[in-house]
Amino acid sequence: MRAVDIIEKKKQGRELVPEEIAFLVEGYVQGEIPDYQVAAWLMAVCLRGMGSVETAALTQSLVHSGEVLDLSSIPGVKVDKHSTGGVGDKTTLVLAPLLASAGLTVVKMSGRSLGFTGGTIDKLEAIPGIRTRMSWEEVVAQARRVGVVVVGQSENLVPADKKLYALRDATATVDSVPLIAASVMSKKIAAGAGAMVLDVKVGDGAFMRTEAEAQELAKVMVHLGREAGRQVAVLLTSMDEPLGTAVGNALEVAEAVETLQGRGPDDLRALCLELGATLLGLTGRAVSLDEGRGVLAGLLDSGAAWDKYREWVGAQGGDPDPAALPAAPVRQPFPAPATGYVREIRSRLVGQAAGLLGAGRGRLDEVPDPAAGIVLAVKRGDRVEEGQPLGYLHTRRLKTLPEATEMVRCAFAIGPTAPEPQALVRGRVGADASGEGFGAG
Amino acid sequence: MRAVDIIEKKKQGRELVPEEIAFLVEGYVQGEIPDYQVAAWLMAVCLRGMGSVETAALTQSLVHSGEVLDLSSIPGVKVDKHSTGGVGDKTTLVLAPLLASAGLTVVKMSGRSLGFTGGTIDKLEAIPGIRTRMSWEEVVAQARRVGVVVVGQSENLVPADKKLYALRDATATVDSVPLIAASVMSKKIAAGAGAMVLDVKVGDGAFMRTEAEAQELAKVMVHLGREAGRQVAVLLTSMDEPLGTAVGNALEVAEAVETLQGRGPDDLRALCLELGATLLGLTGRAVSLDEGRGVLAGLLDSGAAWDKYREWVGAQGGDPDPAALPAAPVRQPFPAPATGYVREIRSRLVGQAAGLLGAGRGRLDEVPDPAAGIVLAVKRGDRVEEGQPLGYLHTRRLKTLPEATEMVRCAFAIGPTAPEPQALVRGRVGADASGEGFGAG
Repeated sequence: MRAVDIIEKKKQGRELVPEEIAFLVEGYVQGEIPDYQVAAWLMAVCLRGMGSVETAALTQSLVHSGEVLDLSSIPGVKVDKHSTGGVGDKTTLVLAPLLASAGLTVVKMSGRSLGFTGGTIDKLEAIPGIRTRMSWEEVVAQARRVGVVVVGQSENLVPADKKLYALRDATATVDSVPLIAASVMSKKIAAGAGAMVLDVKVGDGAFMRTEAEAQELAKVMVHLGREAGRQVAVLLTSMDEPLGTAVGNALEVAEAVETLQGRGPDDLRALCLELGATLLGLTGRAVSLDEGRGVLAGLLDSGAAWDKYREWVGAQGGDPDPAALPAAPVRQPFPAPATGYVREIRSRLVGQAAGLLGAGRGRLDEVPDPAAGIVLAVKRGDRVEEGQPLGYLHTRRLKTLPEATEMVRCAFAIGPTAPEPQALVRGRVGADASGEGFGAG
Repeated sequence: MRAVDIIEKKKQGRELVPEEIAFLVEGYVQGEIPDYQVAAWLMAVCLRGMGSVETAALTQSLVHSGEVLDLSSIPGVKVDKHSTGGVGDKTTLVLAPLLASAGLTVVKMSGRSLGFTGGTIDKLEAIPGIRTRMSWEEVVAQARRVGVVVVGQSENLVPADKKLYALRDATATVDSVPLIAASVMSKKIAAGAGAMVLDVKVGDGAFMRTEAEAQELAKVMVHLGREAGRQVAVLLTSMDEPLGTAVGNALEVAEAVETLQGRGPDDLRALCLELGATLLGLTGRAVSLDEGRGVLAGLLDSGAAWDKYREWVGAQGGDPDPAALPAAPVRQPFPAPATGYVREIRSRLVGQAAGLLGAGRGRLDEVPDPAAGIVLAVKRGDRVEEGQPLGYLHTRRLKTLPEATEMVRCAFAIGPTAPEPQALVRGRVGADASGEGFGAG
């Protein structure tokens, strides 16, 4: 078998057999097949596509490039969640303790982010004292005792995906549905959970530009999960503005805490209820989405979820008190340039502005400022008066404040009429796996 | 400008601007843009194509990656020829002195070949004493004095093409019309001739599988030549069997000499007359193809071309006497397995068999055996009796003789009826540049 023949075959639009895909992935990880041959293959995949057998073979090759976690020693139903990413997305911080308080077991490996704002691990690390590196024995013990553990992804989990993703990033071969699906699902499968909910963002600022593409991605991921014996449901959700009001690591932890205390922004609470209810349905803990939403809303409003958060964060050595979170020395409002309705808040620009304030990292070895970020005072559809604060910039970087202010103001479109309200959930795929009553919910 | 954005643009099928192409090529040659990014771009080009402005920009970037020869100190019309390659193609050895005997000046940079059989320089080097490395001053002096000089291609000519070609070879991105056209034309433009004829082989064993693809390649190359101020004509010619009867370096030189002496195989003589007459027309030395053919046939039959060959080879230090060529110790016939008509002689297999006998090289540092090769005793369409020799294997490698014999016998298809005769010239592009009477010839 020669890599160049496999590339040629894919270039011609023909379907590769699993052995050919395994040959490429294994050869690449072992350094026997060079970057440039894999890059040519990736581009051919982007333009020619992959069939379901090929995509499943790629997923399996990625999974078996490293260790596969065995959660069988932890009793109960182990669940996981994944989001394709969004500005202000702190749902994991809410969902993990919320699901644990509902009796599910959450064992989650999360990542850092190379971007304007942090990943889940960056957010968690804004909590003083918290540990995000734990031994496997510690992870299992905490999962058994507390029901929830969130740690940084092991270096040995799906190493082929890491190498491949870096290459895709450098060769404009990221936006391929089968490549994305295989990348996401290989990590979820290797992480060991039996049931998972995936949140695929749709909209202007999202990875998937069209709903059709997002639907396609969702279907492929559900199929890949089933092939690997996992229950998978996907929600397609709007990303037409940042989720909630806080963007920035400590600010997002504080907002997650508010939500766990039964308050918090409507859209964040609603999304957590949808994702959580989907998992309750998928694992047979609820017979309908409505029932699932009700159960979870009760856990938020009763303080049970908040109690679980404190137990969880405490178990990982962190101080769960939001008052202990770091705060920025400067907190500067930015005013509305006109009177009218907020028609649009472009997530990407808000994220970039937060990055300028110190919330992100340009390179993986940079350390984000946990206190930096932006808190919005208004949401899409709100009426505002000229000069009224649209939100607040939190930073210790005074020099970049003017540029960040300009950028975040550009993110707002204000017009004379209110925009059409938009549905949070724009589609569901795979949820019917848990029964008809649920699928129709 | 970032390479990844340029790759993305081409992936989307958009046209790159010349600055973007120059950025890629220059960055690649200077080692600033890595192999894997260029590989992804090449695959995107293969699958998305390139427009004529892009292809011209790529050609110019390749040309200017190294030195550009200036032939202006040599008086007269400087011409060049190129072939996309075929088994037994020794036309350069005939055409170079033939055109010089017709008053044109031939300054040709040729290559070695990494394949079953040699390139023009490998063939020339079968001549005892010949020099194929000369200083630029020597090249100019010989061109002025003799009218013909053929030397190895300078390392400094189009270095970007060398680097790019090696990458294309390893990434299954060779067979793209704009990439092939830019590669060929950049070398021809940098080599400095004002007029050139290109021989694009069509057929099963050829680079271009279909006539439509060959036509497209021809049109692009003529356009690129005109953009660079060069006169270019392309012939599309059949490659349904080896050209002539000899395959192997010294054997091909001997066949070229026979042809220069007014004998030689019909197909080789005819192809040389077609290519040569096209150049005479293109440069205004003949008003029609018929006139051009007549002039050149006269030069072959009168001994003038043979005289020029001796002058040329002698000027480069070689012994022009064909009796001085090296001969193989073994010359073994291979018999016809059946009685009937030769319906097919698969060039590729004949070439591979010659390679087994020692005529080629697997790596660029191997030295081919100049005496090794195959001489066919029959051509396509001939009637043969069972047991009659189809040809002779020349070698000093007794061990590989059985395998080579088996392979060359496989190259022959013998059937009960004669095959349809096939036209040598299957198309012409660009020849009308020299006037209507000529284009219609």
